[in-house]
Amino acid sequence: MEKKIITISREFGSGGRTVGRKIADMLGIPFYDKELVEQVALESGFAPKFVEENGEHSPSGSFLSYAFAPQGIPGVMNGLSTADFLWNIQCSVILQLADQGPCVIVGRNADYILKDREDVLHAFIHADKAFRADRIVRLYGESEKSPEARLNEKDKRRKVNYQHYTGRTWGDAHNYNICLDSGVLGVDACADIIINIVKNSK
Amino acid sequence: MEKKIITISREFGSGGRTVGRKIADMLGIPFYDKELVEQVALESGFAPKFVEENGEHSPSGSFLSYAFAPQGIPGVMNGLSTADFLWNIQCSVILQLADQGPCVIVGRNADYILKDREDVLHAFIHADKAFRADRIVRLYGESEKSPEARLNEKDKRRKVNYQHYTGRTWGDAHNYNICLDSGVLGVDACADIIINIVKNSK
Repeated sequence: MEKKIITISREFGSGGRTVGRKIADMLGIPFYDKELVEQVALESGFAPKFVEENGEHSPSGSFLSYAFAPQGIPGVMNGLSTADFLWNIQCSVILQLADQGPCVIVGRNADYILKDREDVLHAFIHADKAFRADRIVRLYGESEKSPEARLNEKDKRRKVNYQHYTGRTWGDAHNYNICLDSGVLGVDACADIIINIVKNSK
Repeated sequence: MEKKIITISREFGSGGRTVGRKIADMLGIPFYDKELVEQVALESGFAPKFVEENGEHSPSGSFLSYAFAPQGIPGVMNGLSTADFLWNIQCSVILQLADQGPCVIVGRNADYILKDREDVLHAFIHADKAFRADRIVRLYGESEKSPEARLNEKDKRRKVNYQHYTGRTWGDAHNYNICLDSGVLGVDACADIIINIVKNSK
């Protein structure tokens, strides 16, 4: 079965986003990451920054999240929590994007949302903490938190969000058709492996 | 870092053994599966069939396992359970084999036993139950148990054994450098992907 759509799930700092971008560029197909966030923001009325922060992370626990609900559209959330409301919009946007044709979608639990389509290849990119810590400092700079603390926080929030909305375990190989360790294999090589699989599926 | 040794962990029926055999043949390096069982049997004094049954499966619960202990070498087990005794021998044989040079090792928790060697590539081959059920009936024939029951039993025993001796979760992508779904990608293609990675690591 030809694989037309590629979902890339990834650990923070693993280079999964770069892998996805290279695949999309080499195959000449759209790449959805920030673009997806913007579309969800548009459809939900939330600010893009809020969607990005909450679209694939468990809430940080603030009871104020309702305060950021879309303004001027009372009742639109139908009594859902902001997180559940966002999840519904995100599912709908991802299903629509997949219907539009070949593409690469990074994150946002797209592996689960598109699990019933046979023309989708699901990939997971991971790496050990030393590799990822080094990479986030190089790419995003230092912050007041240690790189390890930043990784732990992001890892935990993605894991909890994934488990909550999919009922699956984050990082379980069974959820994906291919899992690659970018720290050992190299970010570029991970992209090449996936590109070859997609090309050979035709 | 050049990858000289490949460990293949696999779900029952996924074709992981066939993947390992093709990699070894194509790279012209030794392949250890039954051969490893025989060596462990030789060093432990257990019958090969007993080693095969218990080397990577949790005990089936029989209190009679001591009855199959090596004869004529009293005290050799030093008070260890047969399973722990077998685990120690298996670790020692796998470490020795790795020291001898390039090879492919299938199963027997070799991914964990060789986790500290940087010249090892760790792969996990899995597939959904429908693919595996069909494959075991085709390869090993029917039995009085349903294919699903045979898969469930083997999966459970490998999982428990792995968790007990390694403290890791069976099938967690983080334990491996590459995980491949042979049901979707094809058994032959899985071998080719790994062969390319090994060749490119040189």
